[in-house]
Amino acid sequence: MELERVEGGLCAVKGVRAYGIKEGKNGLALIEGKGKAIGMFTSNKIKAAPVRFTMRQLEAREGRISAIIANSGCANSFTGERGMRNAEKMAELASSSLGVDKEEVAVASTGPIGKQVDMGLIEKQLGEVAKRLTADEEGSMTAAKAIMTTDTFHKERAISIGAGDEERVMIGGIAKGSGMIFPHLGLSNATMLSFIYTDVSLDAEALKRCFKDAVDNSFNMIVVDGDMSTNDMVLLVSTGGGGEISEGDFRDGLNFVCTELAKLIARDGEGATKFIEVRVKGAASVGDAREIAKAIVRSPLVKSAIFGERPDLTCGRIIATIGSSAIGDVDPDSISISIKSEGHRAVLVARKGEFVDLSGAARDIMKGKEIFIDADMGKGEREATAWGCDLSYDYVKINAG
Amino acid sequence: MELERVEGGLCAVKGVRAYGIKEGKNGLALIEGKGKAIGMFTSNKIKAAPVRFTMRQLEAREGRISAIIANSGCANSFTGERGMRNAEKMAELASSSLGVDKEEVAVASTGPIGKQVDMGLIEKQLGEVAKRLTADEEGSMTAAKAIMTTDTFHKERAISIGAGDEERVMIGGIAKGSGMIFPHLGLSNATMLSFIYTDVSLDAEALKRCFKDAVDNSFNMIVVDGDMSTNDMVLLVSTGGGGEISEGDFRDGLNFVCTELAKLIARDGEGATKFIEVRVKGAASVGDAREIAKAIVRSPLVKSAIFGERPDLTCGRIIATIGSSAIGDVDPDSISISIKSEGHRAVLVARKGEFVDLSGAARDIMKGKEIFIDADMGKGEREATAWGCDLSYDYVKINAG
Repeated sequence: MELERVEGGLCAVKGVRAYGIKEGKNGLALIEGKGKAIGMFTSNKIKAAPVRFTMRQLEAREGRISAIIANSGCANSFTGERGMRNAEKMAELASSSLGVDKEEVAVASTGPIGKQVDMGLIEKQLGEVAKRLTADEEGSMTAAKAIMTTDTFHKERAISIGAGDEERVMIGGIAKGSGMIFPHLGLSNATMLSFIYTDVSLDAEALKRCFKDAVDNSFNMIVVDGDMSTNDMVLLVSTGGGGEISEGDFRDGLNFVCTELAKLIARDGEGATKFIEVRVKGAASVGDAREIAKAIVRSPLVKSAIFGERPDLTCGRIIATIGSSAIGDVDPDSISISIKSEGHRAVLVARKGEFVDLSGAARDIMKGKEIFIDADMGKGEREATAWGCDLSYDYVKINAG
Repeated sequence: MELERVEGGLCAVKGVRAYGIKEGKNGLALIEGKGKAIGMFTSNKIKAAPVRFTMRQLEAREGRISAIIANSGCANSFTGERGMRNAEKMAELASSSLGVDKEEVAVASTGPIGKQVDMGLIEKQLGEVAKRLTADEEGSMTAAKAIMTTDTFHKERAISIGAGDEERVMIGGIAKGSGMIFPHLGLSNATMLSFIYTDVSLDAEALKRCFKDAVDNSFNMIVVDGDMSTNDMVLLVSTGGGGEISEGDFRDGLNFVCTELAKLIARDGEGATKFIEVRVKGAASVGDAREIAKAIVRSPLVKSAIFGERPDLTCGRIIATIGSSAIGDVDPDSISISIKSEGHRAVLVARKGEFVDLSGAARDIMKGKEIFIDADMGKGEREATAWGCDLSYDYVKINAG
């Protein structure tokens, strides 16, 4: 089975049209495409109005949706009843401009918490966006740009999977996210947003299994700051009509798209000067490996040591983080760590409980822009990978407002 | 019962002698004073050699100790068997220079993880320190200075409690800590170090109850960065011989000293420009109140918004943090938040689910150096208070090495 990267983002999937505009901090994206949606939403106990609204929409129609409307510049979170009425109003506006059922519109928002949506602006922007909906790559690109907040680049990926030309399945998605990134998405529950379309023909249960697996291994494994948003949302919409491939092949494809989009978010973390990939292997359980990997990319001390290009401090702080995050027992004497970066071979910096060589090659590696950390717990066979970025002066600057 | 602040730190307690020296990054403190010690140690699963060593020492002699030796500049953590031999050697050196039993010496270390202790330097510094042990305030002050790492000031507090002149009970302590501060100290298990002496006459069980209560409400409620050290240790040594006071009065006194020391650590957080106190009230449980309060002072987004003096961003991010950290249910529509700072009256910024006024007075309050945040969950009667500091460029600078 062959997996090929293609252009077009969302719009690589047949029947999907999109467009978005961004004016200053305020953007609006509209995506049209009929299909069955599965959503994964923030597990924050305070969920923004659009999150609660979309959860309800998906439930009412067993996931059948016709459109997604998403704004940036206002999270519509902590906005009381008026916030919920506005989320509903957004769905209504989208429904009437597209001539689709208002129960089949999903709504998403991202931006500062605590202020009401400017519905006048939404209405005005929607008027323009609806006119310009398009099924080519411009549609996906403008939608991806419209939902950006502190993002410095737009994020989209598309692939086609299949053995021959006839049977190809398309998966295309867009995403946004740069700060308040510590998604913990549940099936019944950042601000990261991602909308993914596919035309695969697979039954609902298989789709759900693939989706949960992909999100758990991608969006749920990125950390920019460890702050969980009230607005995180990932929607997978299957339009059907594409080729039939095995569940395994589709899972691999969806994993690829979600992981690529998640890594783009980590790479674009607020103020990031370096991209970090942490692979924890040799763990007793996948749970342990996941917690440790995420804790390492979350640690402000590890992140600032990487920003400072200091292998010694980085490794020492990784050790402390392993000990504070592991679920099961940890034996420091069995832990080994190696690091590498683009253009450099991996160097062992800790071997079974002791530091090895933190000068020379290790210092050169830390000067790279893509830092790969491999931490071997020496306990078992399980592993997990997390992605994040360093902590720079600019993170503070961006978030100091 | 009257509680009076006195000078002298550790040495306010009769029979306690101390001294410390600091040469560049390397410091050594020696404290002599016979008594029964209770320890609370980091719950990091990777514990530094001196932590494991001291836990063993306290167990072997039912807490009887005669001296504490503590070095800064090297954590003696992730140092294998040699690290443990060095911790033991430190106890032996202290024992022979003081003529006390080597089983009755506690050892503590703070500094970078992963390097071996320079035993030659320890021996040399110990020679000087042992000669200059003194029972006056210089003893406590020099010891407090010797254990500093990135601390910008030394930390000590002493009080006397009692009704008359005869019956007074003394409690005196020193502490250090500035980064890698997210202590989670357990009775059977930062780098924050604190050594507290008292001459109170109370039974062992009552002492332990008071100590656990005080540490849980003080050191366990401070966060600088959310990174848990392998070296955190708080020792309470009761020398006896002082007056008899009720358990309640002693608990209040010990709470006061521990809280003061903990707040000094928060105030001296790496790069801090503002001290933050977060009180969560109206919670359904103390557990909920504690988790939420700590999560707010831990959040990089809240901390950088406070650094940036932005009431709107601060409050929005507090809302997201409440939702992501609460153990029990959260009803956003019942949450109210008020803020104040030195010289300003409190201002309500969120009232039952909606923002009120985030301009004017709120902006002036955020310019203060001591920011007090009061978050009312509107759910119950429980409360908890946590302390921390803002996230500034200097935090990144200090930790980038």
